[in-house]
Amino acid sequence: MNVSVVILAAGAGTRMKSKMPKVLHKICGKEMLFYSIDEALQISDDVHIVLFHQENTIKERVICAYKQAYANGALHFHLQDHAHYPGTGGALMQGQSAGINAKKPFCYQYDEILILNGDMPLVRSQTLKSLCQNKAQIVMSVLHLQNPFGYGRVVIESGEVQRIIEQKDATESELVIQDVNAGVYKFHKSILELYLPQVQNANNQQEFYLTDVIFYAKENGVKIAALQVKEEEFMGVNSKIQLSSAQEVMLQRLREKAMEQGVIMHLPHTIYIESNVTFSGECIIEQGVQILGDSYISDSHIKAHSVIEQSIIESSDVGPLAHIRPKSHIKNTHIGNFVETKSSILRGVKVGHLSYLGDCEVDEGSNIGAGVITCNYDGKAKHKTIIGKSVFVGSDVQLIAPLKIESNVLIGAGSTITKDIEYGDLALSRTAQQNIKDGFFKFFSPKNEEKKEE
Amino acid sequence: MNVSVVILAAGAGTRMKSKMPKVLHKICGKEMLFYSIDEALQISDDVHIVLFHQENTIKERVICAYKQAYANGALHFHLQDHAHYPGTGGALMQGQSAGINAKKPFCYQYDEILILNGDMPLVRSQTLKSLCQNKAQIVMSVLHLQNPFGYGRVVIESGEVQRIIEQKDATESELVIQDVNAGVYKFHKSILELYLPQVQNANNQQEFYLTDVIFYAKENGVKIAALQVKEEEFMGVNSKIQLSSAQEVMLQRLREKAMEQGVIMHLPHTIYIESNVTFSGECIIEQGVQILGDSYISDSHIKAHSVIEQSIIESSDVGPLAHIRPKSHIKNTHIGNFVETKSSILRGVKVGHLSYLGDCEVDEGSNIGAGVITCNYDGKAKHKTIIGKSVFVGSDVQLIAPLKIESNVLIGAGSTITKDIEYGDLALSRTAQQNIKDGFFKFFSPKNEEKKEE
Amino acid sequence: MNVSVVILAAGAGTRMKSKMPKVLHKICGKEMLFYSIDEALQISDDVHIVLFHQENTIKERVICAYKQAYANGALHFHLQDHAHYPGTGGALMQGQSAGINAKKPFCYQYDEILILNGDMPLVRSQTLKSLCQNKAQIVMSVLHLQNPFGYGRVVIESGEVQRIIEQKDATESELVIQDVNAGVYKFHKSILELYLPQVQNANNQQEFYLTDVIFYAKENGVKIAALQVKEEEFMGVNSKIQLSSAQEVMLQRLREKAMEQGVIMHLPHTIYIESNVTFSGECIIEQGVQILGDSYISDSHIKAHSVIEQSIIESSDVGPLAHIRPKSHIKNTHIGNFVETKSSILRGVKVGHLSYLGDCEVDEGSNIGAGVITCNYDGKAKHKTIIGKSVFVGSDVQLIAPLKIESNVLIGAGSTITKDIEYGDLALSRTAQQNIKDGFFKFFSPKNEEKKEE
Repeated sequence: MNVSVVILAAGAGTRMKSKMPKVLHKICGKEMLFYSIDEALQISDDVHIVLFHQENTIKERVICAYKQAYANGALHFHLQDHAHYPGTGGALMQGQSAGINAKKPFCYQYDEILILNGDMPLVRSQTLKSLCQNKAQIVMSVLHLQNPFGYGRVVIESGEVQRIIEQKDATESELVIQDVNAGVYKFHKSILELYLPQVQNANNQQEFYLTDVIFYAKENGVKIAALQVKEEEFMGVNSKIQLSSAQEVMLQRLREKAMEQGVIMHLPHTIYIESNVTFSGECIIEQGVQILGDSYISDSHIKAHSVIEQSIIESSDVGPLAHIRPKSHIKNTHIGNFVETKSSILRGVKVGHLSYLGDCEVDEGSNIGAGVITCNYDGKAKHKTIIGKSVFVGSDVQLIAPLKIESNVLIGAGSTITKDIEYGDLALSRTAQQNIKDGFFKFFSPKNEEKKEE
Repeated sequence: MNVSVVILAAGAGTRMKSKMPKVLHKICGKEMLFYSIDEALQISDDVHIVLFHQENTIKERVICAYKQAYANGALHFHLQDHAHYPGTGGALMQGQSAGINAKKPFCYQYDEILILNGDMPLVRSQTLKSLCQNKAQIVMSVLHLQNPFGYGRVVIESGEVQRIIEQKDATESELVIQDVNAGVYKFHKSILELYLPQVQNANNQQEFYLTDVIFYAKENGVKIAALQVKEEEFMGVNSKIQLSSAQEVMLQRLREKAMEQGVIMHLPHTIYIESNVTFSGECIIEQGVQILGDSYISDSHIKAHSVIEQSIIESSDVGPLAHIRPKSHIKNTHIGNFVETKSSILRGVKVGHLSYLGDCEVDEGSNIGAGVITCNYDGKAKHKTIIGKSVFVGSDVQLIAPLKIESNVLIGAGSTITKDIEYGDLALSRTAQQNIKDGFFKFFSPKNEEKKEE
Repeated sequence: MNVSVVILAAGAGTRMKSKMPKVLHKICGKEMLFYSIDEALQISDDVHIVLFHQENTIKERVICAYKQAYANGALHFHLQDHAHYPGTGGALMQGQSAGINAKKPFCYQYDEILILNGDMPLVRSQTLKSLCQNKAQIVMSVLHLQNPFGYGRVVIESGEVQRIIEQKDATESELVIQDVNAGVYKFHKSILELYLPQVQNANNQQEFYLTDVIFYAKENGVKIAALQVKEEEFMGVNSKIQLSSAQEVMLQRLREKAMEQGVIMHLPHTIYIESNVTFSGECIIEQGVQILGDSYISDSHIKAHSVIEQSIIESSDVGPLAHIRPKSHIKNTHIGNFVETKSSILRGVKVGHLSYLGDCEVDEGSNIGAGVITCNYDGKAKHKTIIGKSVFVGSDVQLIAPLKIESNVLIGAGSTITKDIEYGDLALSRTAQQNIKDGFFKFFSPKNEEKKEE
């Protein structure tokens, strides 16, 4: 679309009680600000981000995540002249460096300018399109709230905004108005050029308010279209409580999308999935499961309370209570309880219990006994373990990497394997069992009446 | 009761996006269709199931699960002639094989016929009884919905159905009607015999609608009683989202029943219990617990995120984060974290940590150390481990089955036990510890300033 | 404040279906009755607890938990003469031991007397203060309920109670009243002295009702102030279902308090925290986490489904699926999956996987391999393991306590360590690995076509 988008992300966000900038707090694994940027890039190739607090931290993170868009000139950063021009109006002004033109708006590529907030991660580009498609010179998003207390009320007649009244200025009869300003606007460039320089900061906060642009425009007969939007999309995130609420809305979308695709979810409200997770085929996801990063789950059953990070799971069952760490590729495999994998490729394998498989590859038909551990770390570096087909690794075996175990190998329980094993061999390191007559009684007195079995 | 029940289960259920027939999808571990059958068998010994899509798969599963009822002649299957007589009306017709009587209803034992749906797993027999006890020749279940959009509206006067209006045919004033057809009916046999053959398929879908029977009967002066029913019971399941919603309703019933019996639940909304689980005495079930199959839990404390499958737990504490697999019988026992049992009988035992006990029996007063593993599988078959009373199994011991360990035995930590141990003996397989002077520095440079302790 | 508080805790609580007294059931780890006592002690130094059922059990538990308050004379116990003076009115009477003064109230230090219930754990002292600050001779707490069915309705005019009508005595027009008696009252001492002796038990239950005091007072022209209170605070707990609902309300308060302080919570509704848990700095608490006892969590990340009991976690990450048992002090440390600690001090340590660390101390820079177990229990007593700095403990090592391992030590994987190790040493107990040619085929036939790699 021929629209420029401005994302306001200059605020300090003190209510978040965090050293981290508010807009970098994550929802379903993705920074709040990045949701706004993603939606903006869906409808525009001229996106402007206004920063001030922790400007550099945010800028670096954005450039790192949006290398391509930044290289293409689709992303621009502006530093608000917060010292002299604070407020939502000030955020759009060039500031003192522009000399007498300090209150002029920044330069945009297109005539239509959409103003978003960096702390509204739930807004969808579809809704933004509706805002942009409205031909009015000013379009204002409006929420209808059950409890409008604290919000600026909007007087609407025949779909047009007549007035905006702040909570503190509202009369009894105005206080019952349930339409409030949702904080997202579309302006024609000429409106900003004409009225932004008129905005004053003669208020308690000494801030320059963007709503004053609307006030001046209205005074001059400009029509302001009101677009009703949904609270679910336009809730702002100013505190950790709101962060968790917004995440819950996002999760609900992700879960429903997955279920619509055919995924079965048990207790979906206990399941956490991040925004880049994808499913295919028929999957079952049980209660308490957590799936992170770019994971891909296909025709698999993920059992209760398992955690999957940045991995591929195909035609497998995992858990309950398993942990698949990043860069695992699990296919046609059974992973049981208390099993952890990391950077491992398992094809057609059974790993039933209590094991750690790190930096390894295991091939078809192999069985990993309970308590098997790949000792992949020697205190300095990580090493690989390669296991062939139809290998039977006994319980409690330590595989000290680097290690290569060929196919058709049997490893005795409890062995410490330090050397490679060739095709067909049996390997073990074992000390013979000794039974010491009445040795129990050197440590304990007899604990029950039961006679010795003859 | 003298009532025949028909369960409609012929639909394809394409919105489920599954290769599995819709009515075989499970809720709390039980197939949706089986809920309908169970409730039907509570009030009738003449239950008819109408099938078409994946007829054989469903029929086999039903016969396998209801051997007794099927042998007793209480269960009958009909194949809908879907090619010629599609639709809910067609489902009740004998079809082309009956020649000119194709539209005649199937034969039922009783005069009163109750029509259920295979995708309404939440309906209770108590409610069905109320439907049947109504003496009207037609009784129609009616839901009062906040948002009736999409449903057929029902015009009710003095408790009688006057008309059914489809969404698309409704006028403005009819659209506000909130009473809708819940899809469960009772008919007198004569009604079906008289009006079913009159039903035509002159509609867009070219289907034969059961509601047309009601239309014709009404035209002929038959009174149609409306019975108000609850949405919670009569919600249909057509998608995975609805499947999860229906399961949540069922879980809520199961949890409340358990709590009414005296079970304490922490965060009950995070607890999953299947329909055959039973509790007795005073139990505490913590958050995230999953209890499957025919498990029986008595006077026990199941701690957070533990999974219990098809097992008996008596006077014991389990978890957190433990996994009791099928056929475990746990009594007077402490099971700690990261412990898995399977087909095992534990009486008065302590298994505190990180162990796998499969195919074993352990008797009173025995203590299983951390990391103990029963090596029950040799790659070909499973073998048993029998442990007597007051046995102390040290940490990280592998018990290679088959194995018999008598009472009052001590096994040293880290041992691999391959041979039986007699009463009173101490067993171990251990290589002496070697301390190699300054051996650390062959691998690492000194990592801290701390001087060697003199 | 100059107010005496009476907590009614004499009831049998049969609906709880428990051998334990109702008021000792816990909410977020704290006995219901103790919430009332804590709030009472915030506003009064003259708190009276009326007991009858399981009097001694409750009394002992209270004295044990409130040693100081009891020693200071702030806590008093009364035994209701339940045999002769049952009911809420009877609970305030001295009973037969007082002879002809049986119906006289107990003696209180102050003129204002607040009556609480031991089964209302959600009432806050702030609300109780409002009740006490009202100068009326009788103040009655009143709830406005959507569904008042079953409750005594309260007729209020100009803020004054006119009448209390029991459900069974209410007329049609009275039944629609939504104001009900919340069961908490403030009386001037003279009111109780004057009207309590007048109360009769001429009712079906043959009980002495406290509401009769209000009836008689009203008859004599005493003004009764109505104070509207919130259902969220004044819900009573009479069953396990209500216990879980009340706990959910309490948890919601605790979670919101934590988030307001700056804690990030994922799926907060799945997180369980007890009432004495404290947070500081920036913490992330993931789904399913359980934090018990007096735990203190500071600048740490607790990952999914981890359980923390009575421990201190500082600047560390824990989990997912880890279990920190009581008296652990974890600082600058990484605890991974399937790790359990107990009575252990870890400073700057990595414990990545599948380990049990009990009764141990580990110092900076040490790395505990997967599957390491401290064998702290020898069947009789617990022993300590002390590990210095920069120690590398290989996988699957058993550390048989008591044991002292100095700094800069390397322990080989799979070793059983029974003796102390000095600074700089390498320790291991290992049997050499044997590879037995074609040994696999003694147990198995070749399982795949793959040729032996040459």
